[in-house]
Parts: sequence; C-alpha cells; structure tokens
Amino acid sequence: MKIAVLGTGGVGKAFAKRLTELNHEIIVGTRDVAKTLEKEGEAGFKHFQSQNPNVKLATFADAAAFAEIIINVSKGENTVDVIKAAGATNLKEKILIDISNPLDFSNGMPPSLIPEYSNTNSLGEEIQRLCPDTKVVKTLNTMWNGLMINPTQLANGDHINYICGNDESAKKKVISLLNEFGWKNESILDLGDITSARATEATLPIWLRIYGAKKTGAFNFRIVS
Amino acid sequence: MKIAVLGTGGVGKAFAKRLTELNHEIIVGTRDVAKTLEKEGEAGFKHFQSQNPNVKLATFADAAAFAEIIINVSKGENTVDVIKAAGATNLKEKILIDISNPLDFSNGMPPSLIPEYSNTNSLGEEIQRLCPDTKVVKTLNTMWNGLMINPTQLANGDHINYICGNDESAKKKVISLLNEFGWKNESILDLGDITSARATEATLPIWLRIYGAKKTGAFNFRIVS
Repeated sequence: MKIAVLGTGGVGKAFAKRLTELNHEIIVGTRDVAKTLEKEGEAGFKHFQSQNPNVKLATFADAAAFAEIIINVSKGENTVDVIKAAGATNLKEKILIDISNPLDFSNGMPPSLIPEYSNTNSLGEEIQRLCPDTKVVKTLNTMWNGLMINPTQLANGDHINYICGNDESAKKKVISLLNEFGWKNESILDLGDITSARATEATLPIWLRIYGAKKTGAFNFRIVS
Repeated sequence: MKIAVLGTGGVGKAFAKRLTELNHEIIVGTRDVAKTLEKEGEAGFKHFQSQNPNVKLATFADAAAFAEIIINVSKGENTVDVIKAAGATNLKEKILIDISNPLDFSNGMPPSLIPEYSNTNSLGEEIQRLCPDTKVVKTLNTMWNGLMINPTQLANGDHINYICGNDESAKKKVISLLNEFGWKNESILDLGDITSARATEATLPIWLRIYGAKKTGAFNFRIVS
C-alpha cells in the first residue's frame, strides 16, 4: 500500500523502515524537505535515506496526497499543526492512523497532558474534528515505539494494543496492517469510537511512571481476566 | 490493628468485612451516624452491622481519632470534604491509605476526571496537602473493588497494584496489610512519592473503557517485561 508517515523523528524512521521491509511504498512527510535533509550525521534523515533508499521524503501535504493510509507519528504538541499542514483535502476519505500523545513538557518531568487535548478531549478527536471526512483510527500510542512495529519481541506478542475510531471498516484495515507488524487479533482490543482516544492517551502518565520505576520502556500491559 | 474505613458504601462495607475477618478492629466513618443507620433493607448499614456485629460506626472524626491506619474509600467528589471532616489533627502522624479516584460524572458516561484534581494534581496529593503530618499512601485505586481485598481470585494474584507515597516506612506497613489481603510483593510496584497518584488516578479512563468493552470489571493489568 501507499503509506505516508508524518514525522521524521526516531518513531517516523522506525515506521518507515519497517513498512518498506513489509513491501509498502512509503513517503515520510516533513514541514520543510530541504531543512530536513540539511542535518548531517547518523541522526539525520539523509543518513537514514542512504540506508533506506526506498523511503521518499516530501512535504506533509504531498505525502498525504500520495498515500492511501497516513500514519501520524508527530509529537503531540505539533500534531494539530502537522495535520493542518497535511490538509483536510489531501486526507479526505482516507485512513489516518494516529499514534500521537498530548504530552506537555512545560511542567517538568515526567510530562503531564496538554489540558486542551485531554480528559474531555484528545488528539484523536481533535484530528477527527479537523478532518471530518477522514477515518481516524487511534492505536499503538500506549507503548514503547519499538513494540509498536515489532510486538513479538516481548512475551510472544501477548500484551495489549487498543484501537478505536468511528469507522468499522477502517479499523478492520488497520488491524490487517497491525497483523503485518506481528500483532495477533487477540492482543488488539477495540474500545469503540474515537472518544476512547481520551482513555488511551491518558495511559501515558502511568506508562511514564512505570518507565521511571523500571528504568526501561521495554514493557507493556496485559489484561488479565 | 485499629483501622478506620471512611465511607459506608459498598467498598467501605467490603473493606470493613474483610478487615474484621483478618482480626482487625474496625470503625467505619460516616458524616451522620443516625442518618446512616436510618436506611432500611439489605443495602442499609444497619443490615450490614447485623451481619458484621464487630464493625462499629462513628463520625469521620471519631473513626479517625480511634485508628492507627485510616482507609479513605469515599467517592472522589466527596473526598476533600470527608478528609476535612475527619480532621487533620485526628489524622496526624497516622497512615492514611487513599483509594479514591476523582471521577467527574458531570459530563456523562463514562466519567472524566475532576479537572482540579487531575493531570498536574491528584486526590492523593490534595489529601497530603490538607494533612501535611499524615503519611498518605495511595494504592488499590486502579481496579475493581472486589480485587482490592481478594486479589488471588484473579489469575492467582498475578496482576499489578501500584503504591506511592512520601514515607517509606508507611509504604512498608501498607504493603504488610496488602499482603494480608493476598497481594504478593512481586505484584506491588512502588512508583515513588505521592505525585505518582496523578498517574494511578489517570488509569481510570482506560479502566472504564475496557470495562465498557468487556462488560465486566473482573480484570486487571499485568505488566509484561
């Protein structure tokens, strides 16, 4: 499939790499292509592209226009701007997988949640509001990014990934993509419509405290019943 | 031990019953003793006392004054008033186990969190602020109340209970009491000081959504690493 990954950071690169390995056609979206390619060294996108030559780089808008599925991996504080830059028209009728979290670093560490996008709102809902004709599916945002795309590296993949969104067929397609990453259907819990993003984004505070206690992000939750 | 349970609802009764079975001396605290005893029928406290004659009932203040350990099981929206009624002087130098959650039902179901006591604050911290000479320990607030006092009824007790608080020796004493309920040490994760209550209280939204999806509260989380 043609997939756009919105965000050029570590998570964006990891998704782009994994998705090309799975034979998808990938464009990574960025605000300013020239500026993104300026950065030298191993952390730069130029270096990443030299090792992953099939991954293309384009503006958020061009990446969104190209893709059938768009994955938003931008930082929560930038997400609304990134989605606006991608453009509701370019995202129309498409599936947008949102894995962002509204982390607020302005009160010190560990971060709290951005008040505007938490409790009775969420980034997932905010994106759905900005792009009413897009099928927003929230998933994968409750864990270390290494696990998102390679769940079986931990406990044979027997840990939880939530999914929510208003469109049932879009959720089914996203579950297929999750299956490609290694997610088993029994590890994916459908919480209902996009308002459940409030709950999945609100798991970040406990995740961050456990991370602080365990000194590793290589964990996830399993629901025991 | 002499233990006060602040709250006469289902959770308060369950704690009182379990703790007397464990040979503790229990006073349940309430706002108005006469009024609490007025209620007829099986849901009333009079009926409960007829079946649990060792459980005493007193005002919040008298219950707190009597006890070595105080357990706050009041509804989050009432907790601050309950703690004020119990009185900082009666709670001084004592351990207060707080299992409340700041649920806000004013926006419909499922509840959100009371803005004043969430994100960059918590009920645990608020109680600690109201009673600076009390050793507030937050625990057990992230699960169905049946599991709190009988964890082994699910998966042999192999699921998570968080604990946090500023006083290390108080946390140790609370862990002893948790052990009496059936909690294994390896199922109890110390998240640090009382500010971690922000995180454990923030697990309620996901708990409530999972409850909605599974139609049962008889589940808990296990941390897989």
